[in-house]
Amino acid sequence: MKDLVIQKLKERGVSIEKVAEIVYELQSEYFPNLTFESCCEAVHVVLKKREVQYALLTGLALDTLAEEGILPEPLLGIVQNDEPLYGIDEVIALAITNVYGSIGLTSFGYLDKTKHGIIGELNDGKYEYVNTFADDLVAAVAAAACARIAHSSVGSVENED
Amino acid sequence: MKDLVIQKLKERGVSIEKVAEIVYELQSEYFPNLTFESCCEAVHVVLKKREVQYALLTGLALDTLAEEGILPEPLLGIVQNDEPLYGIDEVIALAITNVYGSIGLTSFGYLDKTKHGIIGELNDGKYEYVNTFADDLVAAVAAAACARIAHSSVGSVENED
Amino acid sequence: MKDLVIQKLKERGVSIEKVAEIVYELQSEYFPNLTFESCCEAVHVVLKKREVQYALLTGLALDTLAEEGILPEPLLGIVQNDEPLYGIDEVIALAITNVYGSIGLTSFGYLDKTKHGIIGELNDGKYEYVNTFADDLVAAVAAAACARIAHSSVGSVENED
Amino acid sequence: MKDLVIQKLKERGVSIEKVAEIVYELQSEYFPNLTFESCCEAVHVVLKKREVQYALLTGLALDTLAEEGILPEPLLGIVQNDEPLYGIDEVIALAITNVYGSIGLTSFGYLDKTKHGIIGELNDGKYEYVNTFADDLVAAVAAAACARIAHSSVGSVENED
Repeated sequence: MKDLVIQKLKERGVSIEKVAEIVYELQSEYFPNLTFESCCEAVHVVLKKREVQYALLTGLALDTLAEEGILPEPLLGIVQNDEPLYGIDEVIALAITNVYGSIGLTSFGYLDKTKHGIIGELNDGKYEYVNTFADDLVAAVAAAACARIAHSSVGSVENED
Repeated sequence: MKDLVIQKLKERGVSIEKVAEIVYELQSEYFPNLTFESCCEAVHVVLKKREVQYALLTGLALDTLAEEGILPEPLLGIVQNDEPLYGIDEVIALAITNVYGSIGLTSFGYLDKTKHGIIGELNDGKYEYVNTFADDLVAAVAAAACARIAHSSVGSVENED
Repeated sequence: MKDLVIQKLKERGVSIEKVAEIVYELQSEYFPNLTFESCCEAVHVVLKKREVQYALLTGLALDTLAEEGILPEPLLGIVQNDEPLYGIDEVIALAITNVYGSIGLTSFGYLDKTKHGIIGELNDGKYEYVNTFADDLVAAVAAAACARIAHSSVGSVENED
Repeated sequence: MKDLVIQKLKERGVSIEKVAEIVYELQSEYFPNLTFESCCEAVHVVLKKREVQYALLTGLALDTLAEEGILPEPLLGIVQNDEPLYGIDEVIALAITNVYGSIGLTSFGYLDKTKHGIIGELNDGKYEYVNTFADDLVAAVAAAACARIAHSSVGSVENED
C-alpha cells in the first residue's frame, strides 16, 4: 500500500524529496548534523505507517472526487472551494501528525499556515486540481517526519516499537 | 444545512428520536429529572453546529460512495468491509465529540463498543448499506448530546457561547 | 524511566498483570489464539513509549499532589472530587491512546465507562487515595495495548517503526 | 472562575490585551473590518468556557509547582527545562484549541512556533519563571479566539450554542 500512496502523491506533484526538503528546512537549525538523506528516510518511515496510509488514501480520494465533480452537494462546493471553516481536512491530517505524539502538532500548524515549498504549490493549485486535503496531509507527513527526527536524535530505540 | 444533514441521516434510518433514546438511556441515571424531550433538544443543538454538519456530510458521503462502488481501490474495499484498523471513521467522529470538550470521549467510546440502539442497527447493516462512517458518527452525535446535557445541568449559561 | 513509571503505578496497586487482564478480556474474543503473556508483553511495549511515560508521570503527579493537598484551589477540590466536567484527565489519557492510532479510542471510552477490573478499583478508591487521573490513564494504557495487539495480528512489522 | 484565571495569567504578565494583539495581527489580514475591541471580546468569550478554564488552571499550576520545586522528579526537571519531547503542554493546549473546532489547530501551531508577542516573552522567560505550559496555553487561547472570529464572520449565530 505504501507504493500506491507514494504514486498517488506523485500524481499531484508531491515527491518524497520535496517533502524531505521541508523537513530539512525546519529541523536543520535544531540538529546541525542532519542530512537530507535522513530526512528522506524519515518521510519513508512515516509513509510506512498504516494509519498514515489510510489518512492519505481517504483525503486524496476526496480531493479527486471533488475534481471529478462526483461528491454530493453541498460537500462538493465546500471541498472545491477549500472553505476555510470546513476543518475536516485538518482533522484527518491530525491522524498523521499524532503518529509520533503531540510534538508534531506545532510543526503541522506552522507548515499549514506558512505553506512552505510543495505545500504552497499544492495550495496555490493549478486550475484543474483540488488540493483541499492534499496540502494539509503533506504538511502533516512533513510534521510527523520532523517529530520522528526529534525522537531519534535522543537515541530512543526503545521508542521505536 | 442542518435540515439536509437530518434528511441524510433519515435516509439511513436514523431519526433525532432514535439518537435521543440512546442519550436518555445513558444520562438518565445521572440526571433523574432528565426528560426525553430535553434529549431530543440536545441532539438538535449538536446538529446545529457547523463542525458537526461538515463531519456528517463528509462521512456519510464516503459511505454512500462506497455503496455505489465509486471510491477508488483499495479505499473502496476498506470502507465496504469496515476494516477494523481503518480508524479514519473514528477520527472524523472525534471532530463531533470534541464539540463539547473531552468529556464526550468516554460516552463515544462506550457507544461505539456496545452499539446501543440505532448504532447497533447501523452496524449490523442490511446488505445494501455501507455504514462504516455512519455508526461512529451517530455514536459521536449521541456522545456530544450527552456532554451538552452534563454541561447544562450545572446551569452554565456562561459556557454557551 | 519505564521502571519508575511501573513503580509509581504499583504504588497505587496497578501491576502490569492487572492491566493485561483487562486487555485479555477485551481482545480474546477477537483473537482466539491470544495468550495472557502476549497481553503482558503489549502493556510493556506501550509503557516503553516516551509520550506514554510523560503522560503517566504528569497525571500521577497531579493525583499525588491532590492527595497531599498541595495543588492550588480551586484545582485541588476539582481533582480531589473527580469533578465530572473537568475533562483534563481524559485529555492527557488521549495522548496515550493515540500512540497506536485512533482505533484505541473506542476501547478507551468503553473501559473508562465500564471501569473493568483494576480501573474500577482505582475509581472506587480507598479513602486516602486520589485516582482522578490514574483510572483514565490506566484505561488508556490498556486501550493502547489492545490497539497494538490488533495491529500486530495482521503481521504488520512494517508498522513498527 | 473566569476572574481567577485572568488573574493567574496577569501574574505571569499576560493580559487580555496582549493576547488580543496577537489575534488582531493574525486575523486582520482576512477580516479588514476587524477591530482590536472585537479581538479583546473574542478572548473574553474563550476564557468563559469551562474546558478552557480547567486547562489553564491545570497547566499554570504545573508551571507554578515547577517554579517552587515541588513537582516530583523526573517531572520537575522536564517541566523546568521545557524538554522538547515532553508534549503534554501541547496536549493540554489542544483542549483549548478544540473549543471552536479543528480550524484553530493551524493558528495554534503557527503561534507556538513563531512565538509572536507575549508568547515569545513567556518562552524567553525571566530566570525565575517556568512557562513551559503558559506559552502553549496562551497560544491556544489566541488560536481559539481566531477561530471564533472566523466563525462569527459568517454570521453563524446558529453555531453559538
